[in-house]
Amino acid sequence: MPEKRYLMTPGPTPVPPAVLAAMAAPVVHHRSPEFTPVFERTLARLREVYRTDGDVLMFTASGTGAMESAVANLVSPGDRVVVASAGSFGERWTALVRAYGADVDELAYEWGETPDPADLRGREAKVVFLTHSETSTGVVADIRGLAAVAKENGSLVAVDAVSSLGAVPLETDEWALDVVLSGSQKALMTPPGLSFASVSEAAYAARSTSPRFYFDWERIRRAQQQLDAAYTPAVSVIAALDVALGILLDEGLDAVFERHVRLGRACRAGAKAMGLELFSPDEDSAAVVTAIRAPEGIDATDVVKTLLHDHGITIANGQGPLKGQIFRIGHIGYFDVFDITTALAAVELVLAELGADIERGVATARALEVYEHTHV
Amino acid sequence: MPEKRYLMTPGPTPVPPAVLAAMAAPVVHHRSPEFTPVFERTLARLREVYRTDGDVLMFTASGTGAMESAVANLVSPGDRVVVASAGSFGERWTALVRAYGADVDELAYEWGETPDPADLRGREAKVVFLTHSETSTGVVADIRGLAAVAKENGSLVAVDAVSSLGAVPLETDEWALDVVLSGSQKALMTPPGLSFASVSEAAYAARSTSPRFYFDWERIRRAQQQLDAAYTPAVSVIAALDVALGILLDEGLDAVFERHVRLGRACRAGAKAMGLELFSPDEDSAAVVTAIRAPEGIDATDVVKTLLHDHGITIANGQGPLKGQIFRIGHIGYFDVFDITTALAAVELVLAELGADIERGVATARALEVYEHTHV
Repeated sequence: MPEKRYLMTPGPTPVPPAVLAAMAAPVVHHRSPEFTPVFERTLARLREVYRTDGDVLMFTASGTGAMESAVANLVSPGDRVVVASAGSFGERWTALVRAYGADVDELAYEWGETPDPADLRGREAKVVFLTHSETSTGVVADIRGLAAVAKENGSLVAVDAVSSLGAVPLETDEWALDVVLSGSQKALMTPPGLSFASVSEAAYAARSTSPRFYFDWERIRRAQQQLDAAYTPAVSVIAALDVALGILLDEGLDAVFERHVRLGRACRAGAKAMGLELFSPDEDSAAVVTAIRAPEGIDATDVVKTLLHDHGITIANGQGPLKGQIFRIGHIGYFDVFDITTALAAVELVLAELGADIERGVATARALEVYEHTHV
Repeated sequence: MPEKRYLMTPGPTPVPPAVLAAMAAPVVHHRSPEFTPVFERTLARLREVYRTDGDVLMFTASGTGAMESAVANLVSPGDRVVVASAGSFGERWTALVRAYGADVDELAYEWGETPDPADLRGREAKVVFLTHSETSTGVVADIRGLAAVAKENGSLVAVDAVSSLGAVPLETDEWALDVVLSGSQKALMTPPGLSFASVSEAAYAARSTSPRFYFDWERIRRAQQQLDAAYTPAVSVIAALDVALGILLDEGLDAVFERHVRLGRACRAGAKAMGLELFSPDEDSAAVVTAIRAPEGIDATDVVKTLLHDHGITIANGQGPLKGQIFRIGHIGYFDVFDITTALAAVELVLAELGADIERGVATARALEVYEHTHV
């Protein structure tokens, strides 16, 4: 039998069979009656997932492209901006705004810390750039609280929700988030290739003088108002996203959020039962990725490599300074509790083989128990 | 029986079944031993199609994204550039360089004209932006000749080869082309979602001060040198491209070019046999798209709509000022002579229904005859 493969990273994430099947449909022209209804429905479904009545602009690009759209469209050289940064993706915001010549007020935390809304007080800026789920550490930030303080300061708020949208509650309109960026390849259960930006009227009115074309909001908004894409889009990935969003909305957004919390708690409880130490705070909100410290004397890189080589299971190493220190189990999107028990069972097996001092035979039972008894 | 569908636009183009099947494979992580060999092979195959020993950088983006990379990485505000423009995609170069504040010397031709290398004489500029196949008109420009004059002027040369690479001969290294842009969804027989830029050492050394991140050549080159992508790439489309490039290289680049010339001549001969007038010059090189004037009293929009509605065949209308005036049959990539006879037979049928005065019953026979007797 060919070895089964398990994709358990925090992105890209596993894709349901019906979504993969849509990827293989014959290509249609993007300006044809065969595609336009798919595009229209996908944009409407995206607005539903975003919980916004405003525009959600679509890019054929990775999530970083959508993030750049926020910077290129909002930041002119010398503009004062705040970046709240507590990991790899927060640092990406900093690198992006520096590339556009912003005057950056960096609210930098240690990797793994949780940004505190109080720390934003008094920091005046044109835009505050936030990270909802910091995939590098597993921390989910209090976007509602952070945005409220930023609004008091008169700032626009731009949120990287690439790994959180569709996994963790996010209310674009109710929380008055001006710009929310996301991507196809995380909780939206679609292969990578598309990313998105919701844009409030206030953000749209505050566009910068920076040069831009492909990520220019005006070009894309004008095209989408005609149900057109400004440039040949990844039609196959859009058709797949349409199917995936249908699956997600059929389950119901609130049910999806609850499932993610239960999966996250189950995974964390199982890891702790084994005697492992979590890297990020063990809170209800941390439903996206479970970051675990490698036990004493064990290199996380060996854990990740052995899981893949011996068992066909892909999890993620730490990024940047955390490489080798932590390993990360993603449970975003197309995951159920048996994915969690599989991940825990395999981690237990591999850690034992590598000589770690862990508790055997308890993790999966504990995970199932917590999953069953958690109600949000 | 469900109506059969025929995609006959100059992009996106039809995709071979084996390539579609690759689109539906389970998603793998982009930094894993499951993906790295695919990425390495695809980059090597791209260099072979580009006929370059240099870097070909890959973007998850439409072709316009790759074009913007050339402008963002080469043009600082105030830089003198030349754009040779003879249609919609030439005008895209102009819009792009204006967005980056270039001092533009626009060598503008009427839509449908063929740029003349002699017209570039004495036009000094940092960069000359060219269009190989002007998809909006069906004209294929003499890139070798144009580039030679640009080089005499000391300019860098950037070529939009989105709809020509893999269909029409293009020699990146031999013709000393500094930057060649292309996309997955034309002659490379892959769904849209990826685009590419070859970058010469001279171009790399001449990078601009313009702000950029996602399309920054340095970030992407550094990542690719480690067989990594700078940002989560469209792994499914890359896996599909790998298969498509394998098919293309198995046929052999020269055989592919010959097939395109024969298909182009067959299509043009068939159209003329019907009594139709070609819009673009009837040259050997015009092997990418056949642009045909709508006959007296017929609106090209009706031709395009009727073909799709009654026969499931998608061809392209004219763009911009040519909308309604011309229709365009693409024959780029996964096309054989029976696609040409299908297109011609259907055009004949629809034109007759619309009341055009055309010659019946000769087009497909003429196309087959020309295809059979053409040797390049």
